[in-house]
Amino acid sequence: MTIENISCNKSFGGWHKQYTHRSEVNRCTMRFAIYLPPQCSNGTKVPVVYWLSGLTCSDENFMQKAGAQRVAAELGVAIVAPDTSPRGDDVADDDNYDLGKGAGFYVNATQSPWTTHYHMYDYVVKELPAIIEENFPVSDKRAIAGHSMGGHGALSIALKNPGMFASASAFSPITNPVNCPWGQKAFTAYLGDDKSAWEAHDTVCLINASKAHTPMLVDQGLDDNFLAEQLKPEALQHAAEANQYPLTLRQHEGYDHSYYFIASFIDDHLRFHAGHF
Amino acid sequence: MTIENISCNKSFGGWHKQYTHRSEVNRCTMRFAIYLPPQCSNGTKVPVVYWLSGLTCSDENFMQKAGAQRVAAELGVAIVAPDTSPRGDDVADDDNYDLGKGAGFYVNATQSPWTTHYHMYDYVVKELPAIIEENFPVSDKRAIAGHSMGGHGALSIALKNPGMFASASAFSPITNPVNCPWGQKAFTAYLGDDKSAWEAHDTVCLINASKAHTPMLVDQGLDDNFLAEQLKPEALQHAAEANQYPLTLRQHEGYDHSYYFIASFIDDHLRFHAGHF
Repeated sequence: MTIENISCNKSFGGWHKQYTHRSEVNRCTMRFAIYLPPQCSNGTKVPVVYWLSGLTCSDENFMQKAGAQRVAAELGVAIVAPDTSPRGDDVADDDNYDLGKGAGFYVNATQSPWTTHYHMYDYVVKELPAIIEENFPVSDKRAIAGHSMGGHGALSIALKNPGMFASASAFSPITNPVNCPWGQKAFTAYLGDDKSAWEAHDTVCLINASKAHTPMLVDQGLDDNFLAEQLKPEALQHAAEANQYPLTLRQHEGYDHSYYFIASFIDDHLRFHAGHF
Repeated sequence: MTIENISCNKSFGGWHKQYTHRSEVNRCTMRFAIYLPPQCSNGTKVPVVYWLSGLTCSDENFMQKAGAQRVAAELGVAIVAPDTSPRGDDVADDDNYDLGKGAGFYVNATQSPWTTHYHMYDYVVKELPAIIEENFPVSDKRAIAGHSMGGHGALSIALKNPGMFASASAFSPITNPVNCPWGQKAFTAYLGDDKSAWEAHDTVCLINASKAHTPMLVDQGLDDNFLAEQLKPEALQHAAEANQYPLTLRQHEGYDHSYYFIASFIDDHLRFHAGHF
């Protein structure tokens, strides 16, 4: 697997880099970003936090806006941020922001016209970690985190792959996509009408069916425009309580859905993950 | 003077807000951003760091990418980020990124077609501080900082207004615009051919003519693409040494001209300013 470096910026003594590569599972060129902390310079293998972004984002939003590099450098943790969908002129798309490019929802599409390229689940779970572990000085210790659609991705992927991630965390996650408009629209398009296929990617459903207990931290702003209709943290809390799942859910007065919220608490997430590596 | 709030995000316990207002000096609607630290909530008047951005930027780049709010909240310091030029359909512009909109260079234009709207010097020195001090819980303690073109603005404005700012700092400033392509192009367009008008806005020339000694911190990356041709930190260093000017110039191996560099050292700048309030 060949990867091509397309940008490089020194950051807090480490390096932020972007790469492109041919994705076998998405059948297109994908771009990702990686932050390598200064500890990598002497060949030390560091753990990796995978960050999954939300609707409309690319690999750039988190790296530019979250302010995560400072504590990642302190802790000696790499961060990998993939794009949120396949890209390219021949990739199916939709006129709306919540379907198609920028809105892959971290599933493998089984429905036309999406199934040709939209395999973000396999990309995040298989192809990308293999690329990272082959090309960079990282250990096999992994965590996964994300925001909104990416929070759904992070929590559901951790639940579906026990043992792969030491911990999982999310900001403002879509906790119960089978029961909200964003999730219902995307899952209908990508997965069809069979609700059991949807439930296999729904964090609340997965907690109810899970025996594994990957530690989970979730932050939610209480002035988030999407809170009641799309995000439903109470559904996550109820599922965790019913199943004695190790969830820490923090709800923050005044905070919204933006990267200003993420930046305010990202340090806690990195320290949470570092504590479980 | 009426200002209109157009956005509001909680950030590190304080608030990031954007406002628009009619600018008398620029004869157009201007937008600025302000970060109010949590100390403001109980009515405490806090000092203000004015941040001047570089070419192509608006009020948003610094607030979204520098990660400054964390330490501003800790120190109890407000940050104000103006736009980098007048804006609007009737405002003169140029096809290139380094003249016209997004490239006001913090001077008062005296040449056609720029003189109608381009009065960023008066905007930053007079109109904006008056608006801030009338509308927000801030004290009369001020500092000024900036990046690239905004570094030129911050240092030259501090030197031209002794006593107004307790301290000044810059990342990758255009130190000697009369001797670099960016500066020569902009000053010719905005100020005409009279070099004495240029020197009145040139940090190196101002240090050579200055009796006031506002403390100054400058950070420069050594892998900055613009270093030799446009930025010339050695000219600044020579002027400071010749005049026993209190300059701390730090040159950083591997860092470039981007916000990844600014984010890596912005905490030091805020602590520097807080130490002089």
